Amino acid sequence: MTARGGAPRALVTGASGFIGSHLLRHLTESGWETAVLLRPAAAEAFAARQAPCAIYPITGQTADVVRAVAEFQPEVVFHLASLFLGSHTSAQLEPLISANILFGAQLLEAMHLAGVRRLVNAGTLWQNYDSATYRPANLYAAAKQAFEDILAYYADAAQVRAITLRLCDSYGPGDRRRKLIPLLLENLRSGELLAMSPGEQVVDLAHVDDICRAFLHAAAILGGPDRDPAPAVYAISGGERRTVCEVAATLEEVAGARLSVQFGALPYREREVMSPWTGPALPGWRPQITLHDGLRDLLSVHADAGRM
Amino acid sequence: MTARGGAPRALVTGASGFIGSHLLRHLTESGWETAVLLRPAAAEAFAARQAPCAIYPITGQTADVVRAVAEFQPEVVFHLASLFLGSHTSAQLEPLISANILFGAQLLEAMHLAGVRRLVNAGTLWQNYDSATYRPANLYAAAKQAFEDILAYYADAAQVRAITLRLCDSYGPGDRRRKLIPLLLENLRSGELLAMSPGEQVVDLAHVDDICRAFLHAAAILGGPDRDPAPAVYAISGGERRTVCEVAATLEEVAGARLSVQFGALPYREREVMSPWTGPALPGWRPQITLHDGLRDLLSVHADAGRM
Repeated sequence: MTARGGAPRALVTGASGFIGSHLLRHLTESGWETAVLLRPAAAEAFAARQAPCAIYPITGQTADVVRAVAEFQPEVVFHLASLFLGSHTSAQLEPLISANILFGAQLLEAMHLAGVRRLVNAGTLWQNYDSATYRPANLYAAAKQAFEDILAYYADAAQVRAITLRLCDSYGPGDRRRKLIPLLLENLRSGELLAMSPGEQVVDLAHVDDICRAFLHAAAILGGPDRDPAPAVYAISGGERRTVCEVAATLEEVAGARLSVQFGALPYREREVMSPWTGPALPGWRPQITLHDGLRDLLSVHADAGRM
Repeated sequence: MTARGGAPRALVTGASGFIGSHLLRHLTESGWETAVLLRPAAAEAFAARQAPCAIYPITGQTADVVRAVAEFQPEVVFHLASLFLGSHTSAQLEPLISANILFGAQLLEAMHLAGVRRLVNAGTLWQNYDSATYRPANLYAAAKQAFEDILAYYADAAQVRAITLRLCDSYGPGDRRRKLIPLLLENLRSGELLAMSPGEQVVDLAHVDDICRAFLHAAAILGGPDRDPAPAVYAISGGERRTVCEVAATLEEVAGARLSVQFGALPYREREVMSPWTGPALPGWRPQITLHDGLRDLLSVHADAGRM
């Protein structure tokens, strides 16, 4: 996959997010020229801390996206932007659909107009809530599925070749989301009693570096010959299935310290995913970082930060 | 299906459109109390010409829809509002997704909050372009499919029972759309040469009264016992499959007059549907009006209008 006169170009959405920022680093390290689409508020904070990459500000207008894609002419678009909501309120309907459906449609329209033909798209295992077929755990997952329907149109009518990676939970350095691993790490530090659900739900955790390698691998597949033109969907799994209780025990073992967690103090959330989807694997990719090793590395990062 | 103290209540979206306005009449004639959700511009024109029904103006805010559904407390919602675009421009992306996905999501959210559990939804045969499975002929059809994904969430998580009727083409009195039958009727009157495609594409035309009966029948099914809670999807067909050329010939025969049409003067449109989907039929419903009879009635209406 080569570009006019040099490095291949990747356009990344969601680059200010956890996975997106890591992906940008992986792309740069792999010799890609990168650009990002960011809302002005995110663009400012982003510019201050990231490796050099082109920043295209977007305001919500289709024309912004069309202009950016036409100007940058990426070989591949990595679409990671999303508005994640575990559950939603009525007031969040419009932003949820705007971020998770409309923005992606604008991106596809812009790709179509610019003749850009390769998309790696981020979905979620929650599109398959306790089900081998589509069953959304929440409205966020339904919106992700809805976007795949829009994608099917552009794949068929505008020859956009696409791979959707339905992602399991992720963890890794620099994670500021209020998710399981950051909460447990915080608990190790603070020692304050953390109220949790019974913890018997299985979680599938992939290290963000493994996830980023999956995105690059998907792009390579799209750059290869003889691809079925229909969009493909794969499940990205960390390769280990453990309950929340077991994850906590693993962390205690790696840290050599006790967590202060009260399992069962909270109920499961409504439509809690008890057993994440095990869908088709991305051919040629597999996770390389075990949860044990990933947690050990995370703890050493935290320990270093603590010493500074 | 009875309501607190009287007539059952139906809330209709898209009531200012062709099928919606006929459905409103059918509902009124069948003893339903009706209300409509309309944008202020449409509401004004609508109020001047329709049978008494409650009008709830909506501005695009979720809160408007939530308030209207909570206040009217319908037994059934008939969701016919859509923005139809045979093909789209970049500038139409946002209104297309807003009208065909976001508005429906607002409606479902409002139903969920108000405890309203029955929805009859209008889809399109174009969701199945030359295919037994999902393949959208255009972005409009993709947006309709995307809405069904949102609906699946509310059906599962909020116990909304729903039937989607994927509609074939429609015709009948008062049709101001620039579609096949109105164009041919206009041609009969004007005698001006009409340039058309080769006309070998099969069209499936249902009379609007048959379609309205399908909507009422679907509502009755939703009111019955023992329904599978998953949303159901049916194809609504006029029951006759004719090419455009054959439809024109039928009209000439019924009218006893010649059309002035030049077939082949225009190319087929991009992604022209050559053979509409023949999906599962709505149990217990079948079209009663043949194309011959429907056209004969239409011509007599036009003749009456001409004599006035």
